[in-house]
Amino acid sequence: MKLRFAGTGDSAQVPCFGCDCPACQRARLLSNHRREPCAGEIELDGELILIDAGRMDLAARCERQRPAAILLTHYHADHVQGLLHLRWGRGESIPVHGPKDPQGCADLHRNPGILDFQPGLKPFRPLVLGRLEVTPLPLNHSKPTLGYAIEDGVNRVAWLCDTVGLPGATERFLTQWQPHGVVIDATHPDAYDSPNPESRAAPRNHNNVAMALEIIERLGPSRAWLTHISHELDADFMATSRILPAGVEMACDNLEIPF
Amino acid sequence: MKLRFAGTGDSAQVPCFGCDCPACQRARLLSNHRREPCAGEIELDGELILIDAGRMDLAARCERQRPAAILLTHYHADHVQGLLHLRWGRGESIPVHGPKDPQGCADLHRNPGILDFQPGLKPFRPLVLGRLEVTPLPLNHSKPTLGYAIEDGVNRVAWLCDTVGLPGATERFLTQWQPHGVVIDATHPDAYDSPNPESRAAPRNHNNVAMALEIIERLGPSRAWLTHISHELDADFMATSRILPAGVEMACDNLEIPF
Repeated sequence: MKLRFAGTGDSAQVPCFGCDCPACQRARLLSNHRREPCAGEIELDGELILIDAGRMDLAARCERQRPAAILLTHYHADHVQGLLHLRWGRGESIPVHGPKDPQGCADLHRNPGILDFQPGLKPFRPLVLGRLEVTPLPLNHSKPTLGYAIEDGVNRVAWLCDTVGLPGATERFLTQWQPHGVVIDATHPDAYDSPNPESRAAPRNHNNVAMALEIIERLGPSRAWLTHISHELDADFMATSRILPAGVEMACDNLEIPF
Repeated sequence: MKLRFAGTGDSAQVPCFGCDCPACQRARLLSNHRREPCAGEIELDGELILIDAGRMDLAARCERQRPAAILLTHYHADHVQGLLHLRWGRGESIPVHGPKDPQGCADLHRNPGILDFQPGLKPFRPLVLGRLEVTPLPLNHSKPTLGYAIEDGVNRVAWLCDTVGLPGATERFLTQWQPHGVVIDATHPDAYDSPNPESRAAPRNHNNVAMALEIIERLGPSRAWLTHISHELDADFMATSRILPAGVEMACDNLEIPF
C-alpha cells in the first residue's frame, strides 16, 4: 500500500488567516510549507481510501480518482468539511465509515447525498476494505474519535489523530500489534502557549510534541510521522531547530510513503 | 459601490462532482464557466462587505482584503462553510450579521473564533454599515433566511437568495423601495427534473427561471441578475439557447457591477 499525507495541519491550517508569525509568512511564500487540514489517502490495488475529509478542495481531488471508501476519525469540521460539498455529486454512492456520533457535523447525516454513512464502527472490531484490514481504535478527544490500525497483509500502520495521549485499551492493542509505522497527533509545541495555565501544563485535546514522542517510544515503530501540526509548532521548530529522534519526522502535505 | 459576484452556483457547484452533463464538461474545460457557491462582495469607500461565506477558499480570499463585515442570508452549509476555517484566524474580530437561527451551522456559534456573531437581524429594521444602509427582508426557504435591500445613498440593489417566490411583506417593501438592481435565486430550469412530480410543478425551496422572471417583472428594476444557478440550468440554457428579457442576465463568477 501507499500512504499519502493529503493534509498535515490543524483546524487553522498553515498559513493561519491573518497571522504574521514566521511559519505563516514562510507558508505564504513557499507552498511546500502550507498545511491543509489533517487527512490521508491510501492507495492499494488501484483503489483509493480516504482518511478524513477536511480539505476544502475535496471534490476536485476526488474527480481525479473516485474514492472507494472514506474513513472518518471524527466529526469536527476540519475533518469532514469537504463532505459538505462532495455529497451533492453524482454517480455511485461512496461508503463512509466512522465513529458512532449521532450529531455528526451540520446536516451531513440528514442530507447525505451520494455519501453512504455506515453504522458507527465498534472499537477493536476490524473492518475489511478490499485487501485492507482496518481496526478502529478509541482515542482521547473532545468528540467520539477513532484511530485506525491499518494492515495490508504485510505492513501495519497506525493512524492516531486527533488525540491527547492514548486510552489504555488502545495502547495495549498497539503494543501487541507492533506497528511498522505510526502517524500521530502532535499539534502543539511543548511550551504550548495557552492563555489557560492548566492547558499549558497538559493540553486537553491534542498531543504536544513531547507527548507524541513518548507514545512513539513506547510503541517502538521503525518509522513515525507527526501530523495535525499547528502554525505555532512550525514556528517553534523554526526558532529552535529542534532535532527529532531517528525514524521520526514532521509530516508535510503531499508526502508519499510506499510500504 | 461595486458589487462582485464571488460565486453564482448552487450547493453542488458547477462542475458538480461526478457529473458528465454538457454544463459540467464545459466548466471543467473553461474555468469562466465554473460556479462557486452563491456569494457576493460589496466594495465601498475601500471597505469590503461579504454577502454569504460558502466559498471553500474564503480565508485565502480574505487575506487579500480583510472584510469589514459579513452578511449571511442563512445557515445552510453552502452559504457559510468557508467560515468553518476562517474563524480560526488571527487579528481583529469580524462582525457577522444574519437571521436569527439558534441552530446555525455545525459548531459555528459555540466556537466562533474571530467571528463576532451579532444578534439576529430583525426584518425590515435597517442596519448601517459605513455608508451602506442594509434592510433585511424575509425570504421563503427551508431555514430562516433573509434577503437584503442595500443602499449607498444613490443606488439601490436587492439581494434575494435563497428563496422560492417572495413573502408578501417583502414584495410590498420592494415595490415601494424601487430597486435599480435585483439579484435573485434562479436555481432550476423551468422543467425542473425532480423525481417528485409535485416539486416538478412547483419547486419548494428555490425559484426556477420563470418564477424569477415574474418577480423581476413585477419589481421593474433597470437591471437584474439570476444567481444560485444549478448545473441543470446551465445545461438547459446550452440546449435551448434561451434568450432572457432585456436588462436580465445570468450572473457569472467574478462579474463586477459598478454602480
